Amino acid sequence: MVERLPDRSDFPGPPAPSDLLRWEEADMAARPVRLGRVRTRLVEHGLDAYFGVRPEHMRYLTGFRLADGEEKVAGHSGKFIVGLDDVVVLSDTRYTVQAVREAPGARVAPITYDLPARWGELLASVGARRVGVEAGHVSHGLWTALQTAAPGVDLVRVDGWVEADRATKEPAEVERIRAAAAVADRALAAALPEIRPGVTEEALAWRLEIVMRTSGAEALAFAVACLAGPEAALPHGSPGERPVLDGAVLLFDFGAQVAGYRSDMTRTLFVGEPRPRDVELYGVVAAARQAAIDLVAARVADGAALPTGREADAAARDVIVAAGHGDHFGHGTGHGIGLATHELPSLSRQAAETPLPSPTVFSVEPGIYLEGEMGVRIEDLVHLDAERGIVELLTGFPRGILVLG
Amino acid sequence: MVERLPDRSDFPGPPAPSDLLRWEEADMAARPVRLGRVRTRLVEHGLDAYFGVRPEHMRYLTGFRLADGEEKVAGHSGKFIVGLDDVVVLSDTRYTVQAVREAPGARVAPITYDLPARWGELLASVGARRVGVEAGHVSHGLWTALQTAAPGVDLVRVDGWVEADRATKEPAEVERIRAAAAVADRALAAALPEIRPGVTEEALAWRLEIVMRTSGAEALAFAVACLAGPEAALPHGSPGERPVLDGAVLLFDFGAQVAGYRSDMTRTLFVGEPRPRDVELYGVVAAARQAAIDLVAARVADGAALPTGREADAAARDVIVAAGHGDHFGHGTGHGIGLATHELPSLSRQAAETPLPSPTVFSVEPGIYLEGEMGVRIEDLVHLDAERGIVELLTGFPRGILVLG
Repeated sequence: MVERLPDRSDFPGPPAPSDLLRWEEADMAARPVRLGRVRTRLVEHGLDAYFGVRPEHMRYLTGFRLADGEEKVAGHSGKFIVGLDDVVVLSDTRYTVQAVREAPGARVAPITYDLPARWGELLASVGARRVGVEAGHVSHGLWTALQTAAPGVDLVRVDGWVEADRATKEPAEVERIRAAAAVADRALAAALPEIRPGVTEEALAWRLEIVMRTSGAEALAFAVACLAGPEAALPHGSPGERPVLDGAVLLFDFGAQVAGYRSDMTRTLFVGEPRPRDVELYGVVAAARQAAIDLVAARVADGAALPTGREADAAARDVIVAAGHGDHFGHGTGHGIGLATHELPSLSRQAAETPLPSPTVFSVEPGIYLEGEMGVRIEDLVHLDAERGIVELLTGFPRGILVLG
Repeated sequence: MVERLPDRSDFPGPPAPSDLLRWEEADMAARPVRLGRVRTRLVEHGLDAYFGVRPEHMRYLTGFRLADGEEKVAGHSGKFIVGLDDVVVLSDTRYTVQAVREAPGARVAPITYDLPARWGELLASVGARRVGVEAGHVSHGLWTALQTAAPGVDLVRVDGWVEADRATKEPAEVERIRAAAAVADRALAAALPEIRPGVTEEALAWRLEIVMRTSGAEALAFAVACLAGPEAALPHGSPGERPVLDGAVLLFDFGAQVAGYRSDMTRTLFVGEPRPRDVELYGVVAAARQAAIDLVAARVADGAALPTGREADAAARDVIVAAGHGDHFGHGTGHGIGLATHELPSLSRQAAETPLPSPTVFSVEPGIYLEGEMGVRIEDLVHLDAERGIVELLTGFPRGILVLG
């Protein structure tokens, strides 16, 4: 089960400028279709506009882009209204040039921080009186202010429309997740020679980041986690000045962003002679990961209904419970990924009891965490396309036991 | 007005481990005082608990830390309840070890994604029935669900309590902003020799980031903006593969994070022979910046009431309007900074009509933007402590005309 160490040349290179252009064109071509789905829902629900507020939705439906965190200072810029006939993107003066450039299919409406004062007029400009608003992502304060400002406009709570649409991936979206996964694969391969006892978690995390961002990633999907020994028991821990330990695990959880789309992978490596207990736990987690993927693959092969996210979670969880570690696996088995690092579908105990969407991309990432001792997690991205009979790994990095240092 | 080029050795070095320890201890000592202010407000408003949801507030009041963006995947972890006697931090299993470590003054309560189901019991555990909730930062969906789940618990809308408290800075907070400003100063000085026509915006932004993150910054305050020539007209633009142009401006807007606290600075440099029109606009912006600072300094020197954020904004804006560029300065003159890059006080046309808080730290950053042609912005951080007669710049980098390439 111990594998040879991979080399960065084992994985595809970064995207070419022609790829970036093709993806841009694919998005431009897809936006009318994406907007069409929103409008179909509007008509079904007797509404005449949709008010969008999330950065991922802005990019998906209009093209307007906010980098991670930028939404915190952007005020109302980028929020948008999809009417039955047109799209309006709000922008204050700081973003107007960008909005016109990135959202050519939309009308850009000037806005300040005072959205409620403009709300009635904005809705009138698209001929709307009943507006669908994602109540899970608009603050109670803004909701109340909009309601008060324009009593003639009904706010109707809608939940998860665009999330649900985004869970199903277009070919050019899958391509970008695949490219982002390859950027991450290469980065970990490039960092392997530097892994030895004494090197700090922070130094290795930084090394991974530099390789990703200078070899194809426009950004990280999220801050690199590199956690040594007992720290690996923190499923969302941050790297510190702690040294890599001999005879202990070393967990990396990281991902790249390519043309807006994310990857996410986790590998738990062994530094020095692996402890038998750690190897045993690794085997349990590996079997759990495989069980979830096998379930999906079997249903696709049989042409049967796809499993629900709960069933996929249970397939992995049952393996860990059977090994006596059910209490040491608190999080879900996986999540969809795309313009956001975490999106639908969810593979968890709380997931929807409907079949997984298709085509889609999701992570499978069971783990076992022994507080104060160690943790193991193995995470791969899976591309599922039931109609084409595809259940494939987008993460290329090997997932057997790797011993370093 | 043309200055000699600064060198990185002109600015203080990165914080020492002893600084980090001292700041940590200062936070520990300050948290009871900070919580005391929240409890005073609770009593004043007849409430018995405060429900906190923002990452900056989590860190300020409890010690629990979420990195930028982590809140998007953290679920309810880190949200907290301040009762009259105790503090409860919510955490799912992914963050439990971290929460116990970082928030030693709090009880850590296990949570899943289903907060409404636990809400009544959580509030009962701190003996609360009337809870202050920041309606501007809790979604309408969650607000409604909490209300429905525990009809016996009153949700009372409160706005800006902790924001207002955080606008007034403790000495150890100012020290960290000062240290973060020095990290940024040094980074720009280090990058100056690489600025010449043909180098890309992205390459220079990356260079600045590397210097900051390897010389004292635990993170960036926000993504580095480096914008050449016409791109500088985008106040929140992103660097691209565009080359630095000869005879044009080059605008940098960036900041560092040190022990949780941010800096933010903007410099507009000249590459090659400056155009007279650009130099003239630079002079207008420099005078506007100075006017806002002079207003604050004059009031402090006179022992008079501090100006409001609107007055400080007007002082800068009047200069730009008088020069005929009022329509080319759409954003506010400045913002507070600390655990968040943008916080109170605001210096803008919409700012509160109350005097600026003190002690505090804010940016002064007027600009003029000519779409398709060029933009100029100059941004410094100002430390104001009226009682001690202090109005000082935390940004050390010179702000006269610098000519490069």
